[in-house]
Amino acid sequence: MYKVKVFVTLKESVLDPQGTAVMGSLHKMSHTQVSDVRIGKYLELTFEEGDYDIDEKVNEMCTKLLSNPVIEDYTYEVEEVVGQ
Amino acid sequence: MYKVKVFVTLKESVLDPQGTAVMGSLHKMSHTQVSDVRIGKYLELTFEEGDYDIDEKVNEMCTKLLSNPVIEDYTYEVEEVVGQ
Repeated sequence: MYKVKVFVTLKESVLDPQGTAVMGSLHKMSHTQVSDVRIGKYLELTFEEGDYDIDEKVNEMCTKLLSNPVIEDYTYEVEEVVGQ
Repeated sequence: MYKVKVFVTLKESVLDPQGTAVMGSLHKMSHTQVSDVRIGKYLELTFEEGDYDIDEKVNEMCTKLLSNPVIEDYTYEVEEVVGQ
């Protein structure tokens, strides 16, 4: 079994209005030390054992469904879980 | 300067309809090896140097604004960035 953690973030060059709004709220709460906020998605996928290449699978899922390659980047971490 | 990565996830016991919908789509794309999907938020915060305790700050932000402690858990990683 695999646990895959996927992080989807907006590309550096893309404006993040949601992040700007959160930063505004943090400043109002007097956390003025915060100079930037970027918001992304975090997904945890669980995979059953099988005859497949995990990297190939995850990359296909990320480019076709989980992220928008035009404006977003993704990274992921694979963790093998030893079954009981 | 600090970079803080915050991961906000639904608690184990809370249903995740968004994750279930994504899993349904993955199955339709014939990625039937995926047995579970959980969706959360990922935030990257940048902090300026200053006289404050970073852990205290981040915990306060997370409990008061960035997550809903009733249904969500959060974890974070602090990375110190050496200025140029």
